[in-house]
Parts: sequence; structure tokens; C-alpha cells
Amino acid sequence: MNIIDIITKKKNSLELSQEELEFAINGFVDGVVKDYQMSSLLMAITINGMSDEETINLTNIMLNSGEIIDLSMINNVVVDKHSTGGVGDKTTLVLAPLVASCGVAIAKMSGRGLGHTGGTIDKLEAIKNFQVNIDNDAFIKQVNEINLAVVSQKGNLVPADKLVYALRDVTGTTSSIPLIASSIMSKKLASGADKIVLDVKVGNGALLDNIEDAKKLATLMVKIGKQNNKETICVLTNMDEPLGRAIGNGLEVIESIKFLKGEAPEDLYTLTTSLAAIMVSIGKNQDIKTSLREVVENLENGKAYQKFLDMVKYQGGDINEIAVSSKVHSIRSSKTGFINKIDSLKIGNLVKQLGGGRVNKDDVIDLGVGFVLNKKVGDYVVENEELIKVYYGKGDITVNDILNCFEIDVVAVDKPPLIYEIIR
Amino acid sequence: MNIIDIITKKKNSLELSQEELEFAINGFVDGVVKDYQMSSLLMAITINGMSDEETINLTNIMLNSGEIIDLSMINNVVVDKHSTGGVGDKTTLVLAPLVASCGVAIAKMSGRGLGHTGGTIDKLEAIKNFQVNIDNDAFIKQVNEINLAVVSQKGNLVPADKLVYALRDVTGTTSSIPLIASSIMSKKLASGADKIVLDVKVGNGALLDNIEDAKKLATLMVKIGKQNNKETICVLTNMDEPLGRAIGNGLEVIESIKFLKGEAPEDLYTLTTSLAAIMVSIGKNQDIKTSLREVVENLENGKAYQKFLDMVKYQGGDINEIAVSSKVHSIRSSKTGFINKIDSLKIGNLVKQLGGGRVNKDDVIDLGVGFVLNKKVGDYVVENEELIKVYYGKGDITVNDILNCFEIDVVAVDKPPLIYEIIR
Repeated sequence: MNIIDIITKKKNSLELSQEELEFAINGFVDGVVKDYQMSSLLMAITINGMSDEETINLTNIMLNSGEIIDLSMINNVVVDKHSTGGVGDKTTLVLAPLVASCGVAIAKMSGRGLGHTGGTIDKLEAIKNFQVNIDNDAFIKQVNEINLAVVSQKGNLVPADKLVYALRDVTGTTSSIPLIASSIMSKKLASGADKIVLDVKVGNGALLDNIEDAKKLATLMVKIGKQNNKETICVLTNMDEPLGRAIGNGLEVIESIKFLKGEAPEDLYTLTTSLAAIMVSIGKNQDIKTSLREVVENLENGKAYQKFLDMVKYQGGDINEIAVSSKVHSIRSSKTGFINKIDSLKIGNLVKQLGGGRVNKDDVIDLGVGFVLNKKVGDYVVENEELIKVYYGKGDITVNDILNCFEIDVVAVDKPPLIYEIIR
Repeated sequence: MNIIDIITKKKNSLELSQEELEFAINGFVDGVVKDYQMSSLLMAITINGMSDEETINLTNIMLNSGEIIDLSMINNVVVDKHSTGGVGDKTTLVLAPLVASCGVAIAKMSGRGLGHTGGTIDKLEAIKNFQVNIDNDAFIKQVNEINLAVVSQKGNLVPADKLVYALRDVTGTTSSIPLIASSIMSKKLASGADKIVLDVKVGNGALLDNIEDAKKLATLMVKIGKQNNKETICVLTNMDEPLGRAIGNGLEVIESIKFLKGEAPEDLYTLTTSLAAIMVSIGKNQDIKTSLREVVENLENGKAYQKFLDMVKYQGGDINEIAVSSKVHSIRSSKTGFINKIDSLKIGNLVKQLGGGRVNKDDVIDLGVGFVLNKKVGDYVVENEELIKVYYGKGDITVNDILNCFEIDVVAVDKPPLIYEIIR
């Protein structure tokens, strides 16, 4: 077997066998297959695609390239949730305690943000002293005691994916659905949960910008999960505007706490309760209606918020000190009309420019900066009315940079639904 | 401009502008564009293709990456001939003196063999003391005096192609027609001839194995030549069996000398006189019939052979000492029937195994080894009759290796024409 024949096969749109995929991926990890050969193969895959069987094989080869977390010591059923990455997406901060309060175990490992989307771990670190690195025994113990822990990724999970992903990022091969599916699913399978709920974002600022591709990705991931005996459900959700009103690490924590105390933006409420109901339903093997009722109850009776406080306490955080910049500037509309679009991608990049996101993996970020939207898509704004608040630090952006994120017109557009489809 | 956007454009089947191709190629030569990025782009080009305009631009960018040979000091019109590489292809050895004897200047730079095909420079070096490296002044002087010189490639011609070609070779991207066209034509244009005749081989053992692809390649190269004001003619020829009877450096020189003295295998005669007539015709701006008459005359009256002797003398060679192994073994047929196929690729690789070809660029080769075919495709052979003679050295091959190159059956197949088409 040699890598040039394998590349040539895929160039000619033929299917690769498990052995050929193993040769390519393991060879790349070992350094026998060179990066210039892997990138050629990745481009051939990106253009010519892969069959479901190839994608399932690729996922398992990646999965087996590193450690697989063992969560068998956790008493309850563990359900994991993953989002393909959105702007202002603080869902995990609310969802995790909410689901845990309903009796489903959340033993979650999250990542840091890179590029225009934030990461849950950065957000949690906006809570003073919150510990994201805790050892495995303490992690298991915490989940068994309070059903909930959210920590930083630990262990050498899926090293093959790390290498392949870094190469895809610089070779124009990020948009391939089979490559995205195998990357996400190998990481989720390595994280050890019993069941998986995936929030697949669609639209401007998301990984995929059209519903057809997102559907294909979702269907493929559900299939990979089933093949590995892990029930997997995908929820396709709109990402044409930032989720909720806050964008930026500390600001999103504050919005999440308000939510848990009863004050939630409509879109964030809809998404979080829907995802929570699905997670509770599969975690407890009960119907979705009963599950949704429990979810709403636990939001209203304060149990979800209490669970959040328990987690902060267990992980050493001080709930009274959350990083938020004191330098605030109000940006006012230069027009009167309906807000027809708020560009998530641009907003995400502006947070990065403010210092709240990373350009490089090792950048230290400013947890206190960001935006709070006063208006959402569909709202009416009059000239000189506040559109958005900027919480700034050292980073430099202009008023026009911000105004350019908004499209305002005298005629309102139809707002797309927040949840497009559930694929199971 | 950035390379990821350029790769992504080609991934999406869009046309690249001249500036984008310059950014990619010059960036690669300068090391700014990494090899793993270039290979990803090359795969996208291989799968999605390039427009003629893109290919013309790419050729010129490659051409301008290095020196361009100046042959303006040569009095006669200089016509160059290039073959895309065949097995047993000693055409240049006969063609160059033949055309020169008709009054057209041949100032040819040739290469060494790599892989399963031989190179003209290696063949000439089978003549004892033949000098392939001569300085530029002596080269021009020789051509002005005798109309003929064949030397080793000199100067830093098309460094971009050298780098790109080396990468294509190890990344499964050799089969792209636009990439082949720009590679061949950038080198030919850099060699400085006024007019170009290209022998595009088709079949087993050739770069392309089907006539449609070869036609596309030929049409594209003719167009690139015209765009650069160099008349270019392509002759599509069959390469399903080795050309002539001898395969191996010294053996091919001997066959060429016999040819020039009047004893030629039919296929080699047809090909060489056809190519020669085209070259004389465009070199002297006269009709093809008159040109063919001159070519045949100069073969018969000995002027072509005298021209060969002149070149050998000018370049210091001893015509009486040609490297040929004295260890000869006759291989006899195990069957009776018609020869339906002689596998060029296998034969070429066996010469390499005998020590007559290179695996790596710096290998020292045995100029005396090779094969002489006693039978060609279409011939009838009886069991135990001689099929082929092996001139061997240190390399090890088996009788079966050789017999496996022949397909013999009781029913004869139709022999394809040697010359498929002339594209101008």
C-alpha cells in the first residue's frame, strides 16, 4: 500500500477501504505520510466526497488515535451536548445546570474559543477563581454528587483530529461535510458520554451557511453515533443573528444567570428549553412533553439556578465577581426602520478585535469586553435610539464597524424560524 | 490576497486570475506558500481543471521564474522537437541529424531518463567520450557550422516547474492536462527555439493512456505556443509497444546508426520521417511533400548519417566504441501464436531493473544493458522461437518477468495506427 495510490483513488472518486484510510491517517500521525500528501488527499475528499461507510471508518480511526474517556463510574446516564459554534452561544451555561437539575448527568468537557466564536471554558473563567482544570477523580465525584461538572478538555483525545484539523485550516479544506462529521463525532465519542445532542448551527457566522448542507451533516453524524451505539440527536438551528443579547465572555455569563433567575431573551429561551427537553427525554427515557414540563418547572422554581450555584461552588468560583468592563459606550442608530439583519460573523470578529477572542491559540483574552444588543432582528428602531452597548478595553474598533453589522430598512423581512428541524 | 482564498476558489471550480496564479506560484518558489498548500491547490486543479486562459497564464508565470535561453545568434530557423516520453524512443538520435541535413537548425537541449523511460543525454553518453556539457559559445558556434548540437540542459530554466513537478510526483497530481501542458510548454519556451514539434505519446507506457486526453493536451499546447508566437505542432503517436526493436541506451544508439545507414524498423521509420518532414516544412516554410522528399533523399544518400558523424566528432565522441553488454541471453517463446501486445511500461521497468534506468535522480546507470525485440506486435511466433534478446549486467530479472511482457494468442488483434493525428 502506498499513499500516492490512495490519493489517486480518491482523486478518481473511488471509495477508500478501512485499511487505506488507516494507512493515510496513522501514517500522517507517525510522520510517514507527509503534510503535503495529506493536504492533497484532504482536497480530493473535500471535492469528491466520501461515502457514509468511509466517513464512519474515518471517525473510528481518528477516535482510536488517542485516549477515550471512561465515564462508567458515573451513576446516572451521561448526556453530552455540543454546538458547532455560534456567536453569543452561551447555551451550555444555562442548559447544563438545567438538565442536571432534572436528574440527568452532565460531565462535560469544553473548549476555548478560537476565531469569531467563543468557548464555554473562557466564559466560565469570567467567574473569578472558577477552576476549569480538575483531576479525574474529583470530576467523577462532583458529577456523582451534584450531577454536573463542566471542565476543560483533558487527556490526549483524538490527536489525529488535532493534526488533520490544523492542516485543513490552512489548506482550504474546512468545508467538507464528511471531514466535519468525522472531526466532531470522533471528539464526542472520545469524551465518553452515553448519549449525544448536537446543535448544528446554520447561517451567517456558522460553520455551514445553508440548510441542505447542515441536514446532510446532521444525518451523517446521527448515523455515526448509532454505529457506535450512542444515541445521537441533531437540532438544526438558525445562526443568522447572535443568540440572545450578550456577546463576550463575562457578559454572556451575566445573561445566563439572569436567564436562570427568570429573565431570558426569547430566542435563547426557545433554544435552551428545546435542547434541554431532548436531553432530559433521552437521558431518562421519557417522552418529550413530560421532559419539557420538568425543564420549565425547574427554571421557574429556581432548581436550575441552584444547580448552577452548586457547580460554581464545587469548582471554586466566586459568583459575585464576574469580569465585565466598566468602560461602556452606547451606539445609536443612524436610521429609522426595521432591523433586518445582525451579522453574526462580523459581530464575532469585532469581539475578537476588542480583545475578547483569540487570533492565535495561545493569546490571552480580555474576558470583560463585548456587546449587549438592545435590538434584535425584527425589532423597530428610530434614529438615535440605542442599538447596542459596547463594553470595551484596549482593542480598537470604530462606530462604523459596529453600525455595519446592522441592516435596517423601512420594510421588515420575515424572520426565519430559530429551530429548523430535529434529526434523530 | 491570501493562498487559502485562492485554494478555496479553485476548490469551488472558479477561474483564477493571473495575479492569483502569480501569488501562488511565486509564493511557492519564495517559500511563503507552503508545500502542503501548493499540493492542496494542485489537487483542486487536477480535479476541477483550468480554463485555457488560466493554463496560458500559468505557463508564462513558470516560464518567467528562471532563465530563457537566447538562440538569436543562430543564423538558421531553430526547430525543437520534444517527446512526452516513450519506451525505446530513440527518435531524436535519428531525427536531429536528418532534419539538420535538410538545412534546419537543431540546437537541442535534452534530459536524462528517470523512471521507465530513457533520456537522449544518457543514450548519447553510450558513445565513448561524447561530451554533453559544452559552453554556450561553443554550442552556438557548432550549430552555426553544422546545423546540429544536442547537449544537456543548461542554465536555471523554469525553477518553478522543477519545484511544482517534484511535488506533483508525490501527491497524486501528475495526471492533470493543464498542469502537464504548462510544465512541458514552459520548458520548451524557455529553451529558445523558434518553432516546436511535440510528439505526444498515447497508450500503455506513455504519460496519457487515451486518445481523448492526448488530443486535449495537444490542442492546449498548440494554443499556448501560438500565444507565445512560436508555431507549435503536435503529433499524436501510439505507444502501446516499444518503438523500434532496441530498448536500452547503447542498444538504441546502435539501432539509430543502422537506421541512418539504411536499415530501419518500420514503426521507427514511419514516425521519424513524418516528424522530420513536419520539422523541415515549418523550418523552411515549404510544403510537406517537398519536405518529405528531401528527408527520404538525405536518408538514402547518406547525408543524414554524415551529419550524425559530424555531431559525434564535434562533441568528441568515438563512434567505434558504443556501450553494449557482451552478456546476451536469448528468450524464447513458450507459445505459438500472434503477438498481440508488448507491454512498454513493463519493458521500460525491466530495463531499469537491469540497471539501465534510474530510480533516483543521482543513480549511475549501466549504459550497456537492455533488450532487442525479435518480434513486434502483429508478428507470428512459434513455440521455442526467439522473442527477445536480453543484454544483461548486474541487475536481476527472471525469464518470466520478460515473458509476462508479451501477450500471445491464436487470434491476431488489429494493430492500431502509429500516428493518430497531427494537431496544429
